[in-house]
Amino acid sequence: MPSKKGVFVQYYLCLLMNKEKNNLGKFAALTDPLLKNFFNEQKAAVPRSLAYARRMIDVVEDFCMRGGKRLRPALVYYGYKLVGGKKEKDILKASLAMELVHAFLLIHDDIMDEDEMRRGKATVHKLYENEYKTRRQKHTNPKHSKHFGETMAILAGDLASQLATTLILSTTFDAEMKIRAISKLSETVKNTIFGQELDIRLETSPAPTPAEILNVYRLKTAQYTFESPLHIGLILAKATPKNIQDISRYAVPGGIAFQIQDDILGIFGNEKKLGKPILSDIKQGKQTLLVAKALEMGNSSHRKQILSALGRKQISKRQAEEVRLALKNSGALAYCKDLAKKYAEQAKDSLKQFNRKKYNQEVIETLSGLADLIIKREA
Amino acid sequence: MPSKKGVFVQYYLCLLMNKEKNNLGKFAALTDPLLKNFFNEQKAAVPRSLAYARRMIDVVEDFCMRGGKRLRPALVYYGYKLVGGKKEKDILKASLAMELVHAFLLIHDDIMDEDEMRRGKATVHKLYENEYKTRRQKHTNPKHSKHFGETMAILAGDLASQLATTLILSTTFDAEMKIRAISKLSETVKNTIFGQELDIRLETSPAPTPAEILNVYRLKTAQYTFESPLHIGLILAKATPKNIQDISRYAVPGGIAFQIQDDILGIFGNEKKLGKPILSDIKQGKQTLLVAKALEMGNSSHRKQILSALGRKQISKRQAEEVRLALKNSGALAYCKDLAKKYAEQAKDSLKQFNRKKYNQEVIETLSGLADLIIKREA
Repeated sequence: MPSKKGVFVQYYLCLLMNKEKNNLGKFAALTDPLLKNFFNEQKAAVPRSLAYARRMIDVVEDFCMRGGKRLRPALVYYGYKLVGGKKEKDILKASLAMELVHAFLLIHDDIMDEDEMRRGKATVHKLYENEYKTRRQKHTNPKHSKHFGETMAILAGDLASQLATTLILSTTFDAEMKIRAISKLSETVKNTIFGQELDIRLETSPAPTPAEILNVYRLKTAQYTFESPLHIGLILAKATPKNIQDISRYAVPGGIAFQIQDDILGIFGNEKKLGKPILSDIKQGKQTLLVAKALEMGNSSHRKQILSALGRKQISKRQAEEVRLALKNSGALAYCKDLAKKYAEQAKDSLKQFNRKKYNQEVIETLSGLADLIIKREA
Repeated sequence: MPSKKGVFVQYYLCLLMNKEKNNLGKFAALTDPLLKNFFNEQKAAVPRSLAYARRMIDVVEDFCMRGGKRLRPALVYYGYKLVGGKKEKDILKASLAMELVHAFLLIHDDIMDEDEMRRGKATVHKLYENEYKTRRQKHTNPKHSKHFGETMAILAGDLASQLATTLILSTTFDAEMKIRAISKLSETVKNTIFGQELDIRLETSPAPTPAEILNVYRLKTAQYTFESPLHIGLILAKATPKNIQDISRYAVPGGIAFQIQDDILGIFGNEKKLGKPILSDIKQGKQTLLVAKALEMGNSSHRKQILSALGRKQISKRQAEEVRLALKNSGALAYCKDLAKKYAEQAKDSLKQFNRKKYNQEVIETLSGLADLIIKREA
């Protein structure tokens, strides 16, 4: 359900990694031992007779530990720190609930998209499918092994979702704050589900409108990746309703800008820098804002170029270049860059509200840096 | 993941329905308007631009409203009333969270079991599959429509799970009590997931042991259908830890007895009275305790009879009779009846602990009646 690509997130984090001020890099180093510890506790609590259950926790753990730069947990942490939260260990634990929710959504998402690889390894349903095949060797009916894989992945996703709740419950925050955090998380998951449904339906829709696509971005990226993590952090730090409202003015435009830029990089970016194949959105037939805008703004020749490539598994270098040209010449690329820039500037401007001593200025700098990078980053 | 059959539950409730003391019948009449109201609120909160999201809530609502006698919510309510809980409307709302969790698990379960019908209508994945076919008419690839159906049903199940949390959160119980109820619910779902995984693996296992099967019963029926609902009710009424411990001595054996009896009725019961086809466990290849015990206790001829029928889609009347004879003559039927009786008696006996004025005696009678029925009910 969440954006599968996160191209831009990856890119941004690579840049941050190379800087001295590598807050997010440090963040993962801080949280990974906690996460490992949590999984060990969970496995220890499973009765001996349930070896398979322990294995399923292992699968979820492996999935979480494969990588991912913990952007969402980091934003929970920053939200908490912004208003001076003090419970270091508890907020790190609570922030990891976002990572478990992320695992839950991705595991189910991979079934829906029939993806075979995730973070450089087999997706969960593929992993169980392979287990089934290995166990049965000669007698495997491919339909059975596929179904077994999907069945186990549905369960593993459901399990990850419950583990997210367990993490929040395991903290020492006041019950009232936990309730509000769980409520926010649940609301977010609901909206992400709606965003995912819309996304899937748009894939099979002949011509989704830019407004419909922006709706998906709002639900799937802006709220899920930016706003909700920041809100949860603020809630747990007992921030005022005004603080929570104010951070949305950063998170929502920031998140949308982020997604638009992600789409652009996915087509115009440098494959090596991104660490994933270019044009995969086009190959998947996904109508990003960039594509929808080009179909709206372009002439019939632009439209033809794009539509002939959309959903095609193999795209030649020449065809790829033609698609890029059509996106550029239709005016869609400039439109999207401009829109992302406007949103990012809006996000950055909104941070002025927190320009007072009582707010953690290091956090403001990090959030501002993120917005800056969205503005400056050229495809 | 929960027992698909609930034959015995259905049967028990039919009996209750025909009595004057129809508490459970009244219970559904009490909660259904609340549930309807909840769904309406949820739909009203969805932005206009998300018509599909509203439709998905509709699908979950329709699924809940198709029937089901609300046994689990009723047990939440009884747990609450047992120790004198007073917030009538709140406990009814919270109890319905169990029903939403049940919907969540059944919707996912139906995908796993590739079932096409549930409560007399299409399962959720079939419903969306049919929608896809209708929309596309000529151009439907059956693989695509099946995958679309499963995708939407994964999402609808995930949604129902979130709605369960929403229901608990919407009550006016103290935050501390809500946290404990959510914790218990989450723990139960986790164990039900583990039970479901074990169940699926046993289906493909050559010979699950009776101990393994009893493990599934403990996780999938005893805890999920009996113990956890009662605990949640007790927790919300601020019962003592001792009360909670004591009710487990009713719920766990009661739940296991219930499931064993359910299995027996599924093979030896009267098809008309049960309202579902006899022998479906055998046809599905499911190794119930009854079957596993017959394979363990029976001679080679009994084993042959049973194994030749197990997993066979069509079973002739003669073959059905032979299977019944093998189950009987192997001694497995008597063994299972006896075991169910022992467990049910144990459950009933445990209620003596609540034999004091401060406990609601009407609730005790109802719980005792349920245990009685398990003991008395002959196949």
